[in-house]
Amino acid sequence: MSEPFVIVGGDAAGMSAASKARRENPDLEIIAFEKGDWVSYGACGLPYYVKGEIEDLEDLVSVTATEFREERDIDLRTQHEVTGIDPQEQTVTVEGPDERFEQAYGTLLIATGASAIVPPFDGVNLDDVHTLHSLPAGAEIRSRIESTGPDSPETVGVVGGGYIGIEMAEALRGQGLSVHLFEMLPHVLAPFGETVAEAVEAELESQDVTLHLNTRVEGFEGDEAVQAVRTDDERVPVDLVVIGVGVQANADLAAEAGVELGESGAIATDEYGRTNLEHVYAAGDCAEMTNVVTGDPDHVPLALTANRAGRAIGQTVTGTPTPVGPIAGTAAVKAFDLEAARTGLIDEERAQDAGFNPISATITSASRAGYYPGGSPIEVNLVADRQSDAVLGASMVGEEGVAKRIDTIATALHAGLTVHEVEYLDLSYAPPFGPTWDPVLTAAKVLAGKLD
Amino acid sequence: MSEPFVIVGGDAAGMSAASKARRENPDLEIIAFEKGDWVSYGACGLPYYVKGEIEDLEDLVSVTATEFREERDIDLRTQHEVTGIDPQEQTVTVEGPDERFEQAYGTLLIATGASAIVPPFDGVNLDDVHTLHSLPAGAEIRSRIESTGPDSPETVGVVGGGYIGIEMAEALRGQGLSVHLFEMLPHVLAPFGETVAEAVEAELESQDVTLHLNTRVEGFEGDEAVQAVRTDDERVPVDLVVIGVGVQANADLAAEAGVELGESGAIATDEYGRTNLEHVYAAGDCAEMTNVVTGDPDHVPLALTANRAGRAIGQTVTGTPTPVGPIAGTAAVKAFDLEAARTGLIDEERAQDAGFNPISATITSASRAGYYPGGSPIEVNLVADRQSDAVLGASMVGEEGVAKRIDTIATALHAGLTVHEVEYLDLSYAPPFGPTWDPVLTAAKVLAGKLD
Repeated sequence: MSEPFVIVGGDAAGMSAASKARRENPDLEIIAFEKGDWVSYGACGLPYYVKGEIEDLEDLVSVTATEFREERDIDLRTQHEVTGIDPQEQTVTVEGPDERFEQAYGTLLIATGASAIVPPFDGVNLDDVHTLHSLPAGAEIRSRIESTGPDSPETVGVVGGGYIGIEMAEALRGQGLSVHLFEMLPHVLAPFGETVAEAVEAELESQDVTLHLNTRVEGFEGDEAVQAVRTDDERVPVDLVVIGVGVQANADLAAEAGVELGESGAIATDEYGRTNLEHVYAAGDCAEMTNVVTGDPDHVPLALTANRAGRAIGQTVTGTPTPVGPIAGTAAVKAFDLEAARTGLIDEERAQDAGFNPISATITSASRAGYYPGGSPIEVNLVADRQSDAVLGASMVGEEGVAKRIDTIATALHAGLTVHEVEYLDLSYAPPFGPTWDPVLTAAKVLAGKLD
Repeated sequence: MSEPFVIVGGDAAGMSAASKARRENPDLEIIAFEKGDWVSYGACGLPYYVKGEIEDLEDLVSVTATEFREERDIDLRTQHEVTGIDPQEQTVTVEGPDERFEQAYGTLLIATGASAIVPPFDGVNLDDVHTLHSLPAGAEIRSRIESTGPDSPETVGVVGGGYIGIEMAEALRGQGLSVHLFEMLPHVLAPFGETVAEAVEAELESQDVTLHLNTRVEGFEGDEAVQAVRTDDERVPVDLVVIGVGVQANADLAAEAGVELGESGAIATDEYGRTNLEHVYAAGDCAEMTNVVTGDPDHVPLALTANRAGRAIGQTVTGTPTPVGPIAGTAAVKAFDLEAARTGLIDEERAQDAGFNPISATITSASRAGYYPGGSPIEVNLVADRQSDAVLGASMVGEEGVAKRIDTIATALHAGLTVHEVEYLDLSYAPPFGPTWDPVLTAAKVLAGKLD
């Protein structure tokens, strides 16, 4: 009998791999260790849980631990932390609630995810300073803001203007709280580019979120609980803080075992999700993937990437070698009444670093035919390479029809289409859903004109 | 001085060509003949005008005749019908309101559009039997249904369950009328396939449209005005009829001059929109295009195709040869509270005729993450070729997020992607806009499983 397929981490990548491996091979022993209590949960839904739009934390769980055990025959052990990997012996050291033991593996998948970055701010350990790093953390924030009485928070400081920060600003305003959003950079949503950022900033302000751009948070003040955010030039009284400045790959366990990390600090993997160690794979938020535009390693920890890579590895380890596929860094975010989306390379400097000669066009079009009631503007920023005419990336913002419209460009990136090829795509048209020339086509037309 | 660029027909294809040619060459003489009064109008908006959502017929005009003349320096002559083409002499015969004359051309563009098909039904000439073939026709229908008094229509028979029929059913119900929809085939929206058709039929019935499927209309009864639709098995009393059974290319003028027509009856064109006659182009609803999936000529008269081909020809005739590009037959339609969309080859028989060995998968997914409120089902039917694994086409239906989601597959068709390649596209994800695995990806996963 062969050694089991052992998985470290019970969220998207790990459990996708476990499930796929089980479907492909009913006889394989599959053991998954999760250090916490929750498995296979949609962390992306946490802001909406905090907002109160999702009633129960359990609603965010797509498959329960019991279902994995009983329906999928996966030996899933929660409250079991893997603390060491011995690649020579092919074992992992596991600390369970009652015992510490060695577990042999035939194949190992490291799917340890990522953690919220907590900068070393003064006062970061004060009460009511939170990150949104887990389901219990989300539950704690919601229980605090829904609490009644004199201690119930009224003003919240959100540190970080990435998509977690934006989604939390919406959630907290939705709960009737005053919100201050602090962003160190000149704009929110840096990976979405300036066009999107400016539209989102205007939306945040119209929703009475107080924006502090270009503002470095230096610390938090208070006795037991936080009472103020101190920045480089002022002191903003708050009753609660949510930090969302990004995540970092949980790669220490891997690194200690001799697994190579990439430049991003996440685990370096090949096209099949293999690490440099034999029989050891990595997937999800802890791992690098290949960027489809640059061909280089990239670390964009997002849900689909984790699910997809886990599933591919589940297939590979059961005998059907399946590449995990490249990523385009495609992302969408709802910011109050706006949708924002991005894919590929849109930052000029980053494009140059990758060896491209970028050129871009920004257009304003609309979500419906001009004469059809209820339409709203859509702005599209499209970026291409001057030499090859290849599309490199795009970002978009508008009130409707944006989040999934980006997929046209994401598909074009995977296919390596040029701007001229995008210009001549036969996209759908009907008056309620767009102008005759879709905003994507208009952007391509304008950019093609600049390339000629 | 060279002979002018002469255009026959003043709607999308013709005026796109005129406008592009003017931008490319400020000195070229450009003459456009339009036999009616209206130019560059959005006929696709007519159902919404009839519904009353668009106030004025003028709102459907994107650029007025005066603007073409004064701002774009295009010699646009309305009420001028071209009645003959002499390709040897390079002249056209024109009948204006006051005179008949010959006009020499250097390049000729035939952009004569398409006409509503009117089957030879008994009583087709009765009053209150309409087609939606023009802006004035739309105005007449709206003025009839908004009329008050004893003659004001209460019940309308819509003949034809294509998208015009569906949109008109919505418009007429929106105006508070009873609607009977007659379709000869077993399903409405034949080009969208059965999955979509069944969902749309359920929606029509839930909106109190009386469906008569598998029902051949034999004629209309009445004295002066129509009083009933007579089908093969009953007599349905109505006060008004709208016929929308399809369109046919206006190709007689071209054919009489020796222009070759394709099998569809529309004008055969090459990749630059050229006909078999030297210096004679054709574009828009009167012309065939190349299908991107089959590589064969195809006639899918839609707005974007006309705009795009016209624009490319305007560029070609001013010195920059520009292919008109292939079409995928991408289309979207709003049917009350549903969105339906299609692209490529989805009909099994048609795929076989084109030399493919089709296989398909139909899945039900959702428009939002499972836990996010307000989501609704999206059904996707994805078709591929067993031999090559290439995606051949898709159709979708749902309450939201469908009309533009089809563009992912349309783009995949232009790029020739396989099902496996679509399965590994990095599409956007955020809980308000879809599940982690986009419905397109889920369809590809399931179809890939069938292909393995």
